[in-house]
Amino acid sequence: MKKKRITLKDIAKEFNVSIATVSKALNDSYEISNRTKSMIQEYAKELQYKSNQSPFTYEKQKNTKTIGVIIPNMLNHFFTKVFVGIEKIVTEKGYNLITCISNESRDKEVTAMELLKNSNLDGVILSMAEETQVKKDFTHFQNTINQGVPIIMIDRVTNEIECDKVIVNDEEGAFNAANYFIKTGCQNIAIVSNIHLLSVGKLRLEGYKRALVEANFPIDDNLILKVDEFNDIDTLLKILLDSKKVDAILCLEEDSAISTLKMVLYKGYKVPEDISIIGFTNGVLPRHVTPAITTVSQHSTYLGEAAAKILIDKIENENIETSYTTKVIKTNLIERDSTKRL
Amino acid sequence: MKKKRITLKDIAKEFNVSIATVSKALNDSYEISNRTKSMIQEYAKELQYKSNQSPFTYEKQKNTKTIGVIIPNMLNHFFTKVFVGIEKIVTEKGYNLITCISNESRDKEVTAMELLKNSNLDGVILSMAEETQVKKDFTHFQNTINQGVPIIMIDRVTNEIECDKVIVNDEEGAFNAANYFIKTGCQNIAIVSNIHLLSVGKLRLEGYKRALVEANFPIDDNLILKVDEFNDIDTLLKILLDSKKVDAILCLEEDSAISTLKMVLYKGYKVPEDISIIGFTNGVLPRHVTPAITTVSQHSTYLGEAAAKILIDKIENENIETSYTTKVIKTNLIERDSTKRL
Repeated sequence: MKKKRITLKDIAKEFNVSIATVSKALNDSYEISNRTKSMIQEYAKELQYKSNQSPFTYEKQKNTKTIGVIIPNMLNHFFTKVFVGIEKIVTEKGYNLITCISNESRDKEVTAMELLKNSNLDGVILSMAEETQVKKDFTHFQNTINQGVPIIMIDRVTNEIECDKVIVNDEEGAFNAANYFIKTGCQNIAIVSNIHLLSVGKLRLEGYKRALVEANFPIDDNLILKVDEFNDIDTLLKILLDSKKVDAILCLEEDSAISTLKMVLYKGYKVPEDISIIGFTNGVLPRHVTPAITTVSQHSTYLGEAAAKILIDKIENENIETSYTTKVIKTNLIERDSTKRL
Repeated sequence: MKKKRITLKDIAKEFNVSIATVSKALNDSYEISNRTKSMIQEYAKELQYKSNQSPFTYEKQKNTKTIGVIIPNMLNHFFTKVFVGIEKIVTEKGYNLITCISNESRDKEVTAMELLKNSNLDGVILSMAEETQVKKDFTHFQNTINQGVPIIMIDRVTNEIECDKVIVNDEEGAFNAANYFIKTGCQNIAIVSNIHLLSVGKLRLEGYKRALVEANFPIDDNLILKVDEFNDIDTLLKILLDSKKVDAILCLEEDSAISTLKMVLYKGYKVPEDISIIGFTNGVLPRHVTPAITTVSQHSTYLGEAAAKILIDKIENENIETSYTTKVIKTNLIERDSTKRL
């Protein structure tokens, strides 16, 4: 029989705790009780657990010319476009890229970070998993930074970690979209969010509300649709359209915009004559459906380029003092056929 | 000034050769002359070139529970769906995934393979870059296999490397599509290929020709459009539609199917009454455009799952004798509104 290398997962199983807890214990995190820590550390030592890059011995090599990327998923057009921007700059500057997908799971993100550090990388570009944003547990990022590996966060960020950040002006993007509805005569403006757990989803909802308040429109909670894994967008939309008067719908990302368009047309409404629709994320779909959907463009490729530039600049020009940049990318509204003309 | 680590690229620049040549020289490849090899090896030694994982000293650790993936690009819906299938199985089996994108470049693929081996991975799932298929230089794959790291090739494969493979029955897929045109009364069937340099593109063209030959239709080279970086699909389509009678067009992947539909409609033809269209790759776009495009589905997610299963099985069950599997995934035709009914 082959001797299997013991993994974080094996240890987690042994103690009936999560992989993240094991990782934290081995990282000597303050969040874990001393008793648990010493138990797990002792066990790991005994079974000769070897982290791919043990946090105790991690020594950063400089200029390996490798950059790691962790993104939440690969089917999201926003992230694939961000990735194209990163790729472009990284290639131009002679760096290599190595990528892990967290699939919105914090445990996977923790493992990905370990795997990437294994490649002795110079820095990490990161958009965090939904679960990480919900649990607000950012230890694995802080540890990485403490080990001397710079991180730049994109799109989904937290104030709890000091690092470089590139974000989209989400609040303003949603404000402008809702305002566009108001200016073109819409009065009953609904919003569909399947990302209300994310920082960006919260900011977009705020922007929508601000536009309504500034126009002296009431905020009607029945017009705010929060879609999650426990309910279905089509069902919620049907209930909304059957129960409320709606003449505009703001969708907070691409897929929900497509679903909304299909449902509105299916229910016999004309777009934009009866109901106007605006979506977020300027992928290929909103451009190719009929009618083409007016979209808040987040300039995702440009965002990726900006993040890669800031990170490489940090890697190549070490300063005595540390300063962090937060770059905010403006959005703009691409007018197509799903909204009335101004 | 910091001392920079010397890279393959630096060495390549010094000798005015490609990164691949340097890699081959350091790998002691038979393809490189002894003189060049010793020159490059000496230089590398002198400047203390340290491969992330030097090929001379590479020792595979077993069961690190990490699998590497190299795919040609991230914007292609086929590969993102394959990736989702890989992800699913890999997660189920408790493995981690680390990904590199070759961007269709052989040099990037060589570097990616080095980077991945750095993570002491158990195996690699690979769809090769277009440039690798054109140059027919597979040394980096053979070296990896020789070092004891199993590779499974998906979709784009070569007979020159003995390893596990999962492929799509591309010839049959195109045959069935062309045959469907013939059965619905089409007589002047064109084909649009922007992947004629890839093995899969060649097989699909063969399937198209076989269907025509079996129906006693002539093969007209003017109906075979080969699109590449030196010409533009819209221009070629315009010339085709203006100069030839066409009542069906088979498009060998998703983007060209969308472009073809748009151009045919723009030229005032009705789809499918005047011209029928079939595309390859069952992504979201063909489903959502108007009219929805009839598509050859390659079951890409299933393909990814199959590849991950075969590789993990190989990793976990080492045999005394080595045998290689080639799994062929059947295609099927998803009938939508861009073709006449049978």
